[in-house]
Amino acid sequence: MADLNEKVDSEIEDALQDAIEVADERQVAEIVESISSQEALRQVSLMKADERDQLISILAPEAAAELIEEAPAELAVAMIEGLETSVAAKIMEELQTDTQADIVQELEKESAEAILSAMDRESAEDVRKLTQYQPDTAGGLMELEVFSFLDSDSVGTVLTRLVEGDEAFERHRGQHPYILDQYGRLVGVVSLRGLLRSKRSVRLEDIMSPALAVQADTSLDELVTLFDENPFLGVPVVDKRGGLLGAVSRRELTEAEMVRAELQSLSRQQVGDELRSMPILLRSRRRLSWLSSNIVLNIIAASVIAAYEETLSAVIAIAVFLPMVSDMSGCSGNQAVGVSMRELALGLTRPIDLFHVLKKEFGVGIINGIVLGILIGGVAWAWKGNGWLGLVIGLALALNTVVAVSIGGTVPLLLKRFGIDPAVASGPLLTTVTDMVGFFLVLSIASLFMTQLLS
Amino acid sequence: MADLNEKVDSEIEDALQDAIEVADERQVAEIVESISSQEALRQVSLMKADERDQLISILAPEAAAELIEEAPAELAVAMIEGLETSVAAKIMEELQTDTQADIVQELEKESAEAILSAMDRESAEDVRKLTQYQPDTAGGLMELEVFSFLDSDSVGTVLTRLVEGDEAFERHRGQHPYILDQYGRLVGVVSLRGLLRSKRSVRLEDIMSPALAVQADTSLDELVTLFDENPFLGVPVVDKRGGLLGAVSRRELTEAEMVRAELQSLSRQQVGDELRSMPILLRSRRRLSWLSSNIVLNIIAASVIAAYEETLSAVIAIAVFLPMVSDMSGCSGNQAVGVSMRELALGLTRPIDLFHVLKKEFGVGIINGIVLGILIGGVAWAWKGNGWLGLVIGLALALNTVVAVSIGGTVPLLLKRFGIDPAVASGPLLTTVTDMVGFFLVLSIASLFMTQLLS
Repeated sequence: MADLNEKVDSEIEDALQDAIEVADERQVAEIVESISSQEALRQVSLMKADERDQLISILAPEAAAELIEEAPAELAVAMIEGLETSVAAKIMEELQTDTQADIVQELEKESAEAILSAMDRESAEDVRKLTQYQPDTAGGLMELEVFSFLDSDSVGTVLTRLVEGDEAFERHRGQHPYILDQYGRLVGVVSLRGLLRSKRSVRLEDIMSPALAVQADTSLDELVTLFDENPFLGVPVVDKRGGLLGAVSRRELTEAEMVRAELQSLSRQQVGDELRSMPILLRSRRRLSWLSSNIVLNIIAASVIAAYEETLSAVIAIAVFLPMVSDMSGCSGNQAVGVSMRELALGLTRPIDLFHVLKKEFGVGIINGIVLGILIGGVAWAWKGNGWLGLVIGLALALNTVVAVSIGGTVPLLLKRFGIDPAVASGPLLTTVTDMVGFFLVLSIASLFMTQLLS
Repeated sequence: MADLNEKVDSEIEDALQDAIEVADERQVAEIVESISSQEALRQVSLMKADERDQLISILAPEAAAELIEEAPAELAVAMIEGLETSVAAKIMEELQTDTQADIVQELEKESAEAILSAMDRESAEDVRKLTQYQPDTAGGLMELEVFSFLDSDSVGTVLTRLVEGDEAFERHRGQHPYILDQYGRLVGVVSLRGLLRSKRSVRLEDIMSPALAVQADTSLDELVTLFDENPFLGVPVVDKRGGLLGAVSRRELTEAEMVRAELQSLSRQQVGDELRSMPILLRSRRRLSWLSSNIVLNIIAASVIAAYEETLSAVIAIAVFLPMVSDMSGCSGNQAVGVSMRELALGLTRPIDLFHVLKKEFGVGIINGIVLGILIGGVAWAWKGNGWLGLVIGLALALNTVVAVSIGGTVPLLLKRFGIDPAVASGPLLTTVTDMVGFFLVLSIASLFMTQLLS
């Protein structure tokens, strides 16, 4: 089965390459249509930049737009930025407004301006409107197309539009019909039940109920809370004077939430939104920027070992256990970090619960420290036949486990209290401290028992 | 601001404790109602098990159920399992069917049976129906309440139910009205537009269109793909003979998806769904089960150092750099793991792309290896004034970075190919290999240059 897939897969790849080379539009389109959009994106991300640009230029703008809609944000930008302005503009016109805005915000200013100028005026204006807002706010997340009526319109008007409405109602499912006054301000909302219950001649202002709306600068967090506490599928967005700007759908919101959650989880590895289709030097530079700051932390931790070179020379066997003690403690500490990060995310823990968390983790640290200390002390004893070596290593690991678990549990709360993102900073901070303390404990306890160790 | 919160917070805590002690139902209810449900859950998770049970028993069943609906799965189970059977049953009756099923599946078999027997027969039967299905399938995710009609019903029947329906339509937003034949089999679906366009006397079977439905054993992954590719807000679930069982809503689906994504990210730290409100011994045991297997990996890696004790004794300064080289390489490798995990999740990479990934990562590894090698080699040189020491350490780190990045990028693909969850196994596997190779490189290169190092 795997072999078969592999064969079919490389055949698609070759056929696609061939068709692109001779610029056989029909053939390229046929191949892309015959595979799933995810598979097509995978092929795109395997290509070099110029091949990719060629492929996209050959595709019909609608087909290219369909692929771009499905692509992760960074790939979507890469798929547009290398194209000729006129081609890019044609594809952009086929994208949804919020995708257009996302891409424009990521493009270089000049090429964004060039593409916008080449687009039809109305679309370009919509994009410009949306790009005013921060991406993670109601303004940045909203759709501009809303299902709205005047307060002086009748029930019949709405029902007729529901019946005729090409895709209007299908697209706006989740939005109730929003009611505006003559100045474009949101004044209410009508329910389907309200519409079906009333005569067609009734004016909307007589059956509407007040609408809950959010300001354009409402944050993603506030929106999440709002949707969590209410069952609605969409919420209207208004400006300061109450004018209707657009609507945020539950769907758009959960997508934004998942992207953010994913980026947070990745930020622990400091790779952010890297994709392998990015240029190699950019990828190296992005990864190095964090690695080189990590060197400093490593030097600080290792300097502890340097201070004890004499002890280490005397009992060289300890060198074997130094990385074991620091690594095991690092793992124990990271477990506690994981629990705290989750409880912070769920709202079950807040920075003021520091002592409660410390108490709880301290208990786990003592139990696990004793167990792990006995295990690794036993290994050291058995290996060198030196009970004192076992005692030194076991004791150091036990103590360092208590330290690591206590720090691991509390450091995310402390960082959050001081406004630092705990997902990014907890890991490196914890590792440095547990390395330092671990090295110190092993080597200083060994110094204390030096006579016994050497006897 | 922080101080103010802290004060108010501890006041709430004290007031709540006092009210629980004297079992002042009214006071307890008032306090819980005055704070947000998230804050109430935080208080609950700060309490000891018996305090928690007391609090929940004092609350009205509806209020307790509201809190439990909002709680993460493990806390929800803990909030039920300590209660008296009759109290638990009353609260369970107030929960949504899918929450009931989730809790019942987590409870000990005997107490689940006891609670189900104490519930009213209809609710208990619904729960029993749902618990037949695996949690991450359409059957486990569906709601039993559907908005359904007979094919012989008229348009008027549906419109009347839309108008009268207390909450019916509001609750079933996202579901179209599903049409069944006389045997309960799903035969079609009608759109709102279709209903509004037709006379009230028209039979539903004349305006219905075919319904897309899924089997109860459809997996979460398949559902995610289905909802990604289609705009609908809900999909009906049928049994083998086509009988309508329930419907999965987009909302329920994204919730399940987020819980799964969160658990996957946590599984890297091997803490799963631990909460600090769990008993301490359980928490210790869960964390130890992974830590103790990690000891074995650590011993394997450290045994490389043991093999080179002679080299190490001769140039003790190397001991300072051993943990630095292994830690830096571990970080570089984890960055590559992060990118691969993300590309796997996005579908941009598949196990058969192994060589493509290897080639790409190899390039990044060489660039970053050279940069990091020069940096840390320079540090070693400056610190001991020994250029050969700098060369040994720098060369070892450069080579180990290439190894770590290449392995880090490919190991998630290999694990996935062999059906092992890469989120769980990639980290420990990578760390062990990069530690071993790192120790080996530093110590064997040092052995090669021993004369120069000691000169």
